[in-house]
Amino acid sequence: MKILVINAGSSSLKYQLYDMSDESVLASGRVERIGMDSSIVTHEPVGALEVRDVSEILDHVSAVKRVIDLLTHKEYGVVTSMSEIEAVGHRIVHGGEVFKNSALVTMEVKKEIKRLFDLAPLHNPAHLMGITAVENVLPGVPQAVVFDTAFHQTMPDTSYLYPIPTVLYRRHGVRRYGFHGTSHAYVSDKAARVLNKPLESLKMITCHIGNGASCTAIKDGKSIDTSMGMTPLEGLMMGTRSGDIDPAIVPFVMNKEELTLNEASSMLNKHSGMLAISGLSSDMREVTDAMNEGDKNAKLAFDMYVYRVKKYIGAYAAAMNGLDVLVFTAGVGENSVVLRKAVMEGLTFLGLELDEKRNAARSKEARQISTDRSKVKALVVPTNEELLIARDTYALVNEAQ
Amino acid sequence: MKILVINAGSSSLKYQLYDMSDESVLASGRVERIGMDSSIVTHEPVGALEVRDVSEILDHVSAVKRVIDLLTHKEYGVVTSMSEIEAVGHRIVHGGEVFKNSALVTMEVKKEIKRLFDLAPLHNPAHLMGITAVENVLPGVPQAVVFDTAFHQTMPDTSYLYPIPTVLYRRHGVRRYGFHGTSHAYVSDKAARVLNKPLESLKMITCHIGNGASCTAIKDGKSIDTSMGMTPLEGLMMGTRSGDIDPAIVPFVMNKEELTLNEASSMLNKHSGMLAISGLSSDMREVTDAMNEGDKNAKLAFDMYVYRVKKYIGAYAAAMNGLDVLVFTAGVGENSVVLRKAVMEGLTFLGLELDEKRNAARSKEARQISTDRSKVKALVVPTNEELLIARDTYALVNEAQ
Repeated sequence: MKILVINAGSSSLKYQLYDMSDESVLASGRVERIGMDSSIVTHEPVGALEVRDVSEILDHVSAVKRVIDLLTHKEYGVVTSMSEIEAVGHRIVHGGEVFKNSALVTMEVKKEIKRLFDLAPLHNPAHLMGITAVENVLPGVPQAVVFDTAFHQTMPDTSYLYPIPTVLYRRHGVRRYGFHGTSHAYVSDKAARVLNKPLESLKMITCHIGNGASCTAIKDGKSIDTSMGMTPLEGLMMGTRSGDIDPAIVPFVMNKEELTLNEASSMLNKHSGMLAISGLSSDMREVTDAMNEGDKNAKLAFDMYVYRVKKYIGAYAAAMNGLDVLVFTAGVGENSVVLRKAVMEGLTFLGLELDEKRNAARSKEARQISTDRSKVKALVVPTNEELLIARDTYALVNEAQ
Repeated sequence: MKILVINAGSSSLKYQLYDMSDESVLASGRVERIGMDSSIVTHEPVGALEVRDVSEILDHVSAVKRVIDLLTHKEYGVVTSMSEIEAVGHRIVHGGEVFKNSALVTMEVKKEIKRLFDLAPLHNPAHLMGITAVENVLPGVPQAVVFDTAFHQTMPDTSYLYPIPTVLYRRHGVRRYGFHGTSHAYVSDKAARVLNKPLESLKMITCHIGNGASCTAIKDGKSIDTSMGMTPLEGLMMGTRSGDIDPAIVPFVMNKEELTLNEASSMLNKHSGMLAISGLSSDMREVTDAMNEGDKNAKLAFDMYVYRVKKYIGAYAAAMNGLDVLVFTAGVGENSVVLRKAVMEGLTFLGLELDEKRNAARSKEARQISTDRSKVKALVVPTNEELLIARDTYALVNEAQ
């Protein structure tokens, strides 16, 4: 079975086509600047040259059509007919409290995704456009939705409730949802396999550190707490997001700087984090490069970033009363040797011992970076959210048949 | 030397008179409802009956006069003449970045306290009224100011800066200051004495848990991080304060509920925390009583409260890469056997072992509650901020002479 995985944004659409017989990727690509004068399509058939063109793509239906054209193209295509695409899986940011697992798309499911627009105003509307576009272009093909929040639905109320008037939870759904769930689920499962131990027997902390970043405490194979909250703003310091701050800063700064609600949100989401402190960049590579060249603000940004990761690891070890496995994943987590080293060298009290050579080795494989005698095992596990979406879609479609 | 310690609020004034020859308290008391129709004065001479009366006290000058009248009263007094009061020490909530230590009151010091009104709009103006009132009633008597923030001025920038645009720090002083500093300083010093070890050799976490609550990480005898932030709202869940939440909740809720900046602050400071979750009370005793009678919301509030304390202890152990001593203090920390038990039983991975009998024993003395073999020592240390204020005042006045 061939499954198309789609991640639809408001002006972009990323895709991957999987052959589920061996979970191999046949092609991947992205459509950018949908609805603008010149949309850019980048199509990468595996084992062949990348195709790139600029044209006008006015909406998500046209974008999906373009993707299907490319996938079935005589020259650049990887399948001969669009009938070979037997299912489509979508990444959906917000599944609220309703979606504890992935689901096949139905009218009711679409309604629920719509009901959650309030909680994910930038993402869920775009995802729904993606689903509708596929219905249009590939009528009759079953679709599944895989949620960033679903994995965290196992959190107990002590983790997901905020100590604020409970009417806000009942009336507006103000609670911790957590995000990056697909990634935390994927890498925790993979880490247990690498260690050859049942996931259910391990106390694990997974650190998904990319431009967005979150830590999750996983006990008995389940998410029991995660650093992102009602929105992806809470928790770790990120590329452009503040993460945790004194909540009183929000009204204080709004008053002093006469900011609107949107301006305050924008400040915390887009103009904060590593970018604000380094004054240079939201990109960890650029910040560490500058730091290595002696830039003091870059060093401060890096140190604050690391410090906040360490504190979450300590907090979640406390939440589980212990730690067996620490996992790094996503762009920064997979690639920043210096970040992992800084985090781990400050946490030897937990029984973490870094193997510097393993940590410095470049690899695309899941691997240990702690020493053999390290009481707590540390791993780098490349994440693969698309593969998990393809797997869930495959399973749901097969169950339904 | 006899020293009067004053804690002036906007409509209240608490006091204690110390005899520094043996650090004994001669009398203590409070004036409440200053500026209202019927002010209440409660005066407690040590070893004699409490005196209480209701009268009209229009301002802080009248309040200080009333206190001096009572202290020198023929029947209820503890000194024969007001000239015996040789110095006055004031508790000041906010010392900003200027005050890294206690200070004698000068024109410049008063100006600085005034400059900090913005950061402590409820407290610093009242404190300044207290200082001015004493100048009026006891002219020529030296006064000292002891700041809640001063102990935390040793924090490194990685702890005190927030990952938000740095212009907010430069322009408005938006940074972590931390509070309860006098208490954290007092109990950390006392804990080291009880253990008969140099404070500088210990990694310590002090948990000041009262109606307000904060944890501090103390390394080499210095505060390196603390849970309260720019304001006393951040950090732990408290009686009526939320502590940490997703900062995005603030604009989200302001929008949904059409709240003003003041209403949002008020919600998070006065209508959140244990009160909001239990739906019953902000008082730990009432909440634990209700929990013991089977109230589910009270149990949830207690569990959330404990969970958040545990996470901070884990985070600060990570911040210091280890932990030697854990200290509980303030109303709840000193008196709630069940809270300390719940916190410590969830942290055995740190090497904390609770001695249930010691924990359950009632005492007003500083004491260990961990077992003798516990790797990390846990103590209850009754706090005494007034004594530290008296000591600092005594030292400053003597230095100046």
